[in-house]
Amino acid sequence: MRKKILIIGAGLAGSLLAIYLGRKGFEVEVIESRPDMRKTRISAGRSINLALSNRGIAALRGVGLDSYMLSEAVPMTGRMIHGADGSLRRLPYSGREGEYINSISRGGLNIALMDVAESLENVELRFGVACTAFDCSSGAVALSDGRVIEDAVIFGTDGAGSVIRNAMLAGGVPRFDFSQTWLSHGYKELHIWPTGQGDGFAIEKDALHIWPRDKFLMIALPNLDGSFTCTLFLAHSGVNSFTEIAGAAKTQAEIADGPIEAFFRSNFPDVIDLIPDLCDSYRANPVGNLGTIKSGPWNVGGKALLLGDAAHAIVPFYGQGMNASFEDCRILDSMIDGVDVDWEGLFTDFTEVRKKNADAIADLAVENFYEMRDAVADPVFVRKRTVETRLEQTFPDYFSKYSLVTFRDDVPYSLARTLGNAQDRLLMSICSETEDVDALDLSEIRKRLADLPEAKGL
Amino acid sequence: MRKKILIIGAGLAGSLLAIYLGRKGFEVEVIESRPDMRKTRISAGRSINLALSNRGIAALRGVGLDSYMLSEAVPMTGRMIHGADGSLRRLPYSGREGEYINSISRGGLNIALMDVAESLENVELRFGVACTAFDCSSGAVALSDGRVIEDAVIFGTDGAGSVIRNAMLAGGVPRFDFSQTWLSHGYKELHIWPTGQGDGFAIEKDALHIWPRDKFLMIALPNLDGSFTCTLFLAHSGVNSFTEIAGAAKTQAEIADGPIEAFFRSNFPDVIDLIPDLCDSYRANPVGNLGTIKSGPWNVGGKALLLGDAAHAIVPFYGQGMNASFEDCRILDSMIDGVDVDWEGLFTDFTEVRKKNADAIADLAVENFYEMRDAVADPVFVRKRTVETRLEQTFPDYFSKYSLVTFRDDVPYSLARTLGNAQDRLLMSICSETEDVDALDLSEIRKRLADLPEAKGL
Repeated sequence: MRKKILIIGAGLAGSLLAIYLGRKGFEVEVIESRPDMRKTRISAGRSINLALSNRGIAALRGVGLDSYMLSEAVPMTGRMIHGADGSLRRLPYSGREGEYINSISRGGLNIALMDVAESLENVELRFGVACTAFDCSSGAVALSDGRVIEDAVIFGTDGAGSVIRNAMLAGGVPRFDFSQTWLSHGYKELHIWPTGQGDGFAIEKDALHIWPRDKFLMIALPNLDGSFTCTLFLAHSGVNSFTEIAGAAKTQAEIADGPIEAFFRSNFPDVIDLIPDLCDSYRANPVGNLGTIKSGPWNVGGKALLLGDAAHAIVPFYGQGMNASFEDCRILDSMIDGVDVDWEGLFTDFTEVRKKNADAIADLAVENFYEMRDAVADPVFVRKRTVETRLEQTFPDYFSKYSLVTFRDDVPYSLARTLGNAQDRLLMSICSETEDVDALDLSEIRKRLADLPEAKGL
Repeated sequence: MRKKILIIGAGLAGSLLAIYLGRKGFEVEVIESRPDMRKTRISAGRSINLALSNRGIAALRGVGLDSYMLSEAVPMTGRMIHGADGSLRRLPYSGREGEYINSISRGGLNIALMDVAESLENVELRFGVACTAFDCSSGAVALSDGRVIEDAVIFGTDGAGSVIRNAMLAGGVPRFDFSQTWLSHGYKELHIWPTGQGDGFAIEKDALHIWPRDKFLMIALPNLDGSFTCTLFLAHSGVNSFTEIAGAAKTQAEIADGPIEAFFRSNFPDVIDLIPDLCDSYRANPVGNLGTIKSGPWNVGGKALLLGDAAHAIVPFYGQGMNASFEDCRILDSMIDGVDVDWEGLFTDFTEVRKKNADAIADLAVENFYEMRDAVADPVFVRKRTVETRLEQTFPDYFSKYSLVTFRDDVPYSLARTLGNAQDRLLMSICSETEDVDALDLSEIRKRLADLPEAKGL
């Protein structure tokens, strides 16, 4: 039956979904509790750039926006590892041509999606309107503008704190699976300023910069204007933590310059001078938490479906949060034939197809946090990364776990995880038995990798 | 600092905790939202007997109640497996003397604990009083009798739907980890009536009866009066499910006799005549859900601590829910030196010590559901059980996973799980390579088991 679509939340997932469903011919209303970001500044403290990779690009291609978005992005062809001594080491993302990730402005991308959504005559966006309640039994939603909408199909793209999901959790859906788990580490954003000379980039432009330290790290992604957005990941408490740096300060604003500068001098000496407002920014930007949310089922019969962060919020260590949400939209769209939809059947099938993949990328992202934090200091791991890169350079049909996740939009996350982890175990085992990676027979290793039972699914 | 203790919930965990803390010399108030079960009937549909084993017994011993409780219990020395053809096969729980589990009345046990708690002059129980709100920042609790208590140390023993835990989840505790996950199967209770002849037991008294079928099962535990409490575990939907039996019925009360009787005739032919009110009971008793709840941290500073099901609700397939909650009480008590307690330090240490063990028994219980449901039909698994029993009979110092969990109160659940699973993997591997278990060299297997890295912790 053809029904009106109500999308709760005009973030990245909601805006892209509105375009997909609008193009299918549905009447779509999108409500967004925040003001129109095209008319106001986006809030401080949020990550202002994101890594767009193949899954996200494929989803943008589905609505014809891939080329435009890529033209607004900064390609990152590899990781630039910054040693504590200021040394630099470049690790390419892939041995193949054209495999890179793209640093893109979150706000710019969201605005472009809103603009396209709004240009469709059957799609309407309303800002400053929140969903205040959802009744799972009737499917009715109450909105902050006083309306109660009873006959729409609801899409909950209202993010990690989803009102729709909370109604499902609060007894609206029997046997609703839900988990929220938090890392011991939080994050804080800082900015490397443009130099004002040449192209303006103070450090290498076309890389994702990583400062791996013992049990903590900082990363930086380039912006088109020559600046970099840095994210500092520290433990909330203990040694080398946000709490330790804060010392006796009772509020963020009271943190003294001394410990901030001392921490950066000793851990990130090569960037301290590139962040002239370091101490003020440090005090001004909040410490964010890093959580994983899983849920299921994602639907309330044919009445509502969770999608994006509302269904599955993940930590940022695989750069896949936005890509996964965009892939949600592409896959949902591919399952809709026309406007006469059996919504309950569709939502049930979508959850069946998609939930295991959302769970897989959530787990991969947490696993990668520990790998990024700890494994760089492990010589076996370093050898394994070398072998992996050589394998990709030698055998174009070989994909490392990172490449399966990042550069293949045709391999489900769940397969990328099981196969990728099996590959990793084999390569770690091989690299633990030798210190001389040059002596390894790459062809024989390629064959053993291809023979892994997990590789059958590829 | 000496403070008043307020225990929220006089169930099994809350009542035992009240005795432990009362004996330590604290002023203890226990509130319970339900009426005093000693004056009213306990609610229908709840499991009315439970398996008490060594961890629970050790905790009762700590307050001098073990002998009395065991005198009120029915020992179960093994599993009695009922084949679909009515055949019987007895599997002893252990090869050692004195290792058995005990079927005990939930209500009787709770009443005995309440009686002892109330006999202590510094412990007060109030029934019909609920906790309506908990403020994590101030530590104040609002009670349904109008009181607001601001200066007590709170123990949340208010079960799987804990008000205290929900306040922590709703933002009261930053980065609160929480998960609720549900099995595809639910449960329904039924009763085998006493025969009225001899000791009254219609089927063997001293066993936990199991009717394993393909993808579903029924169990029965004996009661002192000669009856058995049966629990039927079926999928909620699909083949051989509660939904399938209900057919077109819209409510439980409308379910026809035909499908109920047909289902029992074909799957449990040996008991159908022992449950004379089968169809009425089937309609009257609700279908329960089987969920696992994990959370953490369990404390709000030194203001409140979750304990028992409020902190960790588990599925019943290892018979450890009550035993784990009782062990919580025993271990917490062992960490308290006197009445001048650093509550925050105590609660933090308790969570640190105990949470990994609560998580382990939660996982073990879910794993055992699949094992009980599926593995009985696997010939390798059957051989492995045979070898395991012979090992326990031959080597008194060998403990199977089941024995580590059930009969050792000195082995933490987390070690029982890692060691037990390592033992299982080794034995399954050995039994997959031979069909003739008589030809196996038990001494060599014992040595290989002892050499497992996981066995070092024992």
